[in-house]
This record gives sequence, C-alpha cells and structure tokens, in this order.
Amino acid sequence: MTSNLDPAIAARLKRSPDGLVPAIAQQYDTGEVLMLGWMDDEALHRTLTTGRCTYWSRSRQEYWVKGDTSGHVQHVRSVALDCDADTVLVKVDQVGAACHTGARTCFDADVLPLGTPGK
Amino acid sequence: MTSNLDPAIAARLKRSPDGLVPAIAQQYDTGEVLMLGWMDDEALHRTLTTGRCTYWSRSRQEYWVKGDTSGHVQHVRSVALDCDADTVLVKVDQVGAACHTGARTCFDADVLPLGTPGK
Repeated sequence: MTSNLDPAIAARLKRSPDGLVPAIAQQYDTGEVLMLGWMDDEALHRTLTTGRCTYWSRSRQEYWVKGDTSGHVQHVRSVALDCDADTVLVKVDQVGAACHTGARTCFDADVLPLGTPGK
Repeated sequence: MTSNLDPAIAARLKRSPDGLVPAIAQQYDTGEVLMLGWMDDEALHRTLTTGRCTYWSRSRQEYWVKGDTSGHVQHVRSVALDCDADTVLVKVDQVGAACHTGARTCFDADVLPLGTPGK
C-alpha cells in the first residue's frame, strides 16, 4: 500500500515477507517492555508523525492506533531502528494498562520455568 | 524440526509462518532493550535450559548461541511469553556489547526524527 513514510527511511527498512517489522513498545522512564506489535511503512510513518503509537493488526488486517478503543494510549517519546533496520523500538508514555488483559505489560502473566538441559 | 521444548509450552506457542517467534532481549537490571532475535521451539528450549540465550539465525539458518563467537554472552535471568504467546521476552545479563557493531544495544545508533503529519 502507498505510504507517506520518508523515502530515506523506507529505503533502509527491512521488512518480513508480509511487509511488516516488529515494533517493541517500551515505557520511556521505567524501561518496562510493554508489548510487541507490527508496523508497515505507513504505521511507522503515523507513529513518527502523530505522536501516537500506531500498529498494523495482523489479525484484523487494519491500522490500530493504540488506545483508540481502550483509552490506553501510547504517547510516542522516541523511535529508533536497530542495526539491521528490521526492528523498531518505540519509547512511549503508556496510559494505563498496555495489555488487553488489564495487566500493565503483555509479559506479566506467563513467566516460563527455567529448567535443566536434561529436561 | 524435532524439539525438546516442554509440550505444554509448545502447544501454546503461536509461531509465524516460518515457525519462529520474535524474542526481545532486555538487560535485567537497567531495563535496556538490547536486541531482537528469533527463536524456534528448540532455541526457546535451549534458552530455558542452558542459561544462555539461543536464537535461530534467519540469515545463516542455524542456531546461534549469543556470545559464542564474540564473547558477548547473554546469561538468562528470566523468560516470559506475552499474552498471545507469540512473543518472548528474555531478561538477561549481557556481557559487553549486545550489538555486533560494538554498541551496547542494537537500538543506539539509528534514532528516527519525529515529524509532523503533513510531512
């Protein structure tokens, strides 16, 4: 789809076969990793220019401005690409719970046991 | 490929079409997001059981024990799945630089400008 993303950024971005890159949302001050979403070029453009973190929903196949339904907005503080330009890190100020379950982050509930190699 | 991952975890894990899940490595005490790698079932199993963060290299198509070549080992402190069981968060103690460029994290070098919607 047509995107308004800065062509200099678009030229560097390395996308998965489905045209997306993973985007990590991190609380800018506490460092909590809140969630991982997916962005296409246009979602990244909107995230960079609107002040609101915007993802591409793989399940609904539509843009998803975080918080539009829940009120749990992510105000964008900074956006960075990684060294391979295939992952986005968005530092945000998260209003309320990041997770649809009501948990502060999507990683709070399911800690896996560390085992031994023989397991 | 055959994996020794706990079947209870394997049954919940939601993989991309290529059989992988994104894995975020975070420094356990400072909260720095260090890098994002990819894991299949066996890489997750090894990460859970060996104490060393292990990824699947998409470019080399092989397992990659972080630090085996560089010495920049990631000692595993905790592992969690997100609410959808399609992303892994590994809290690690990173020895030296996480990034192959020598930077502490893979997200240090390429901060994108925040623009205006009209751009």
